[in-house]
Amino acid sequence: MSAFDKLFAYVDENQKYYIDRLAEVVAIPSVSGEASRRPEVVKMGEWLIKELKTLGATVQVHHPGKQTLEGQELDLPPIVLGTYGTDPAKKTVLVYGHYDVQPAFKEDGWATDPWTLVEDDKGRLIGRGSTDDKAPVISWLWVIEAHQKLGVEMPVNLKMCFEGMEESGSEGLDEYIEKEAKGAFFGDVDCVCISDNYWLGSNKPCLTYGLRGISYFMVEVAGPGKDLHSGVFGGTVHEPMTDLFTVMSKLVSPTGKILIPGIYNDVAPVTESEDKMYDSLDFSLADIHSAMESKCTIHGTEKEALMARWRFPSLSLHGIEGAFSSPGSKTVIPAKVIGKFSIRSVPNMEPKKITELVKDFVNAEFAKIGSKNTLTIDCGHAGKAWVADTNHYNFVAAEKAIERVFKVKPDFTREGGSIPVTLTFQEALNKNVLLLPMGRADDGAHSINEKIDKTNYIEGIKLLASYLHEISVAQA
Amino acid sequence: MSAFDKLFAYVDENQKYYIDRLAEVVAIPSVSGEASRRPEVVKMGEWLIKELKTLGATVQVHHPGKQTLEGQELDLPPIVLGTYGTDPAKKTVLVYGHYDVQPAFKEDGWATDPWTLVEDDKGRLIGRGSTDDKAPVISWLWVIEAHQKLGVEMPVNLKMCFEGMEESGSEGLDEYIEKEAKGAFFGDVDCVCISDNYWLGSNKPCLTYGLRGISYFMVEVAGPGKDLHSGVFGGTVHEPMTDLFTVMSKLVSPTGKILIPGIYNDVAPVTESEDKMYDSLDFSLADIHSAMESKCTIHGTEKEALMARWRFPSLSLHGIEGAFSSPGSKTVIPAKVIGKFSIRSVPNMEPKKITELVKDFVNAEFAKIGSKNTLTIDCGHAGKAWVADTNHYNFVAAEKAIERVFKVKPDFTREGGSIPVTLTFQEALNKNVLLLPMGRADDGAHSINEKIDKTNYIEGIKLLASYLHEISVAQA
Ligand SMILES: [Zn+2]
Ligand SMILES: [Zn+2]
Ligand SMILES: [Zn+2]
Ligand SMILES: [Zn+2]
Repeated sequence: MSAFDKLFAYVDENQKYYIDRLAEVVAIPSVSGEASRRPEVVKMGEWLIKELKTLGATVQVHHPGKQTLEGQELDLPPIVLGTYGTDPAKKTVLVYGHYDVQPAFKEDGWATDPWTLVEDDKGRLIGRGSTDDKAPVISWLWVIEAHQKLGVEMPVNLKMCFEGMEESGSEGLDEYIEKEAKGAFFGDVDCVCISDNYWLGSNKPCLTYGLRGISYFMVEVAGPGKDLHSGVFGGTVHEPMTDLFTVMSKLVSPTGKILIPGIYNDVAPVTESEDKMYDSLDFSLADIHSAMESKCTIHGTEKEALMARWRFPSLSLHGIEGAFSSPGSKTVIPAKVIGKFSIRSVPNMEPKKITELVKDFVNAEFAKIGSKNTLTIDCGHAGKAWVADTNHYNFVAAEKAIERVFKVKPDFTREGGSIPVTLTFQEALNKNVLLLPMGRADDGAHSINEKIDKTNYIEGIKLLASYLHEISVAQA
Repeated sequence: MSAFDKLFAYVDENQKYYIDRLAEVVAIPSVSGEASRRPEVVKMGEWLIKELKTLGATVQVHHPGKQTLEGQELDLPPIVLGTYGTDPAKKTVLVYGHYDVQPAFKEDGWATDPWTLVEDDKGRLIGRGSTDDKAPVISWLWVIEAHQKLGVEMPVNLKMCFEGMEESGSEGLDEYIEKEAKGAFFGDVDCVCISDNYWLGSNKPCLTYGLRGISYFMVEVAGPGKDLHSGVFGGTVHEPMTDLFTVMSKLVSPTGKILIPGIYNDVAPVTESEDKMYDSLDFSLADIHSAMESKCTIHGTEKEALMARWRFPSLSLHGIEGAFSSPGSKTVIPAKVIGKFSIRSVPNMEPKKITELVKDFVNAEFAKIGSKNTLTIDCGHAGKAWVADTNHYNFVAAEKAIERVFKVKPDFTREGGSIPVTLTFQEALNKNVLLLPMGRADDGAHSINEKIDKTNYIEGIKLLASYLHEISVAQA
């Protein structure tokens, strides 16, 4: 029996145990976004520390400091750093996950109590945090445990970085990684694996090699010293809302084309091999339609739609601060309004250049209208797009692991959103980063009735174990 | 001594008395918009009933029913109908006022307690409701009282309609007037006088003969079944916000020109005599600038600015319901957004025609962009513009009264906003309606430190008395 066969058999035998342990952590409502739940987040962090120590891992705990939430000063939950194995002859793999979860209330429409893991008749394990990100996080522990129980040697040195603030902006994490990039924990990492995203559909596993960046803009138009009554002032005053609508309506066409001159200049061209990747993906327009509960997609083919989501920039208008936004009618001329929009960027767009193009265009459009109001535009925050080299042994090993466990070639996917820590690891450590998802597209990570399929969890444990073994034999 | 001389002398002698009585009613915090203050509104209504009865007036009380406010079911305050005199040989004048007031909190920045009338060293009587509308309302009582004390016969039959819900939508009033238009109280009215607005500036009295109407529109764009994440869906979906901005940006130019074809077709042309009226008005651009705390006016002359406010239509964008409107940044693609805008209309624009033009234009603009989203547009509420015949004896009498009291010819003004009861009286009773203000432009009716100047109050009592006498001798 090969090490793989032994591990797979062991994992299959212990299915009930793994589900019981998942139920144990789902029962800890570690919601990082609610002040009153903060002790539960800390409890979940301590649960991990205890389990890691039981497995014989070395554990360091970093306390990132304090934050103010709902008017209270709170300790940020600990960043848990586990090290299992320090053999200089082995590769060192850094894995990341988060042990905090989104809020959940039965009243939002959950069919069952969100904090009690329930297995339904379709083999779905339902509960808050089941797929995001508790199953993946604890699966790394089960990989170590299985090796110990079987007396099989761990093929790599494993470094685990688990944070408790991912759902609330990962406060304190980036600074710590950047500061400690050359330190004892992060300094000798060979490659990075993050399991915190999802398959493209419901049937086929995938490896994720790209994320779009984001540049978020605030454009403020101000004029009158206070809100005015439209009866008294309508027709006599340059209205900030009129100016804002005039300018913001010039940013993007109703079919999604960004109208800012030069914005597409730096977009990396689609290569032939990249183009081919799109042809075999497990995806259909019906998947988008069902996810958005509507058929108002712009494109007619899967390939166009996925390219628009993954590898071309987009611009969305999010809203206006300072205007009338409640139900009913109010005859106000708002004195100061802040329009909010963002651009999803792709390689090789640079945030600095994006900001420059946007500012120049918006200022020029505003100058055209001859208003006596003032306009200011600022980039609120920006994060670069990320794309990984899929020829790196990190991806090659993961691909082999998927073929071994699932008997199929994985999809190679990107995502339209950003997972900021991905770029932080790549830039601070200068190592290849792989996103290796465990759950499916329809898991409902931030929604009601969040679930992970039992097969995804159990095969996922096998996948993580196989991945580490494939890494150990891969050509660096 | 003429009746005028006797009345003027009497009013001057009783200044302290009038101020004390104003203090008495300001001390009743009759805020119609706060559930907890409702008993005070009723108390103020009862104060008026008692005073009217003491003066020998016949009093009818109409209870308009109930309303729900702040989750409580409340009785609407009474509509107080007083009749003083029923001589068929005399004209019958209907006067209207309201005894409720706006909310007021010391913390909002009041220099003194809002419910304690204070006279400052500039002769300003400061307190909530002082100018809006308690001084005008009680002044009608002082006119009756002065005639009684002097043994001078009242020159007209006076009908008084005082409501307690004006600051909260005049609930129940319009229906009552319409239903009772031919009834015993309203049926024999010859003309109507409302004292509930303000001089154009601070120096010169005015008569107001026009108000703009309003048509309020809600334009809804819907597509996705739920709010979407711009990372996942940006670039792939027709975004309702993009469609809404595209359409709403076409409605009005940054210099205030409405861009809806045909909208100006019915606007009554400016006549020569009307044009001349604007030349002698007590008004300067500095007044607008100080009122809006900014110099972002569109026009360079007083005449253009006032015409834009009073006698030309305007279109204001008020806001969006359903979009992101809080501080901070959120990367949402709103699924359904409702844009709100309104058109201030003027004679001879008809609400039905306005709605038709707006709907046709908005639907055509939306059709142009080829979106898969859906757009619906509706007129939420509409009120017609009002303009009175200034050659009617009602205005002629008021003009003479002003010349008698103030020794100047009044300004003839319009207002940009609407006072719905004005149109109701004109349309239901089919009688000439006059707006005869008592206070000044800078009284701060709905603001902190609301005041009425002592001279405006005292000369105002004389004005109301003189007006009734001039009415009685005017050529009908
Ligand atoms: Zn996650
Ligand atoms: Zn999440
Ligand atoms: Zn009023
Ligand atoms: Zn008012």
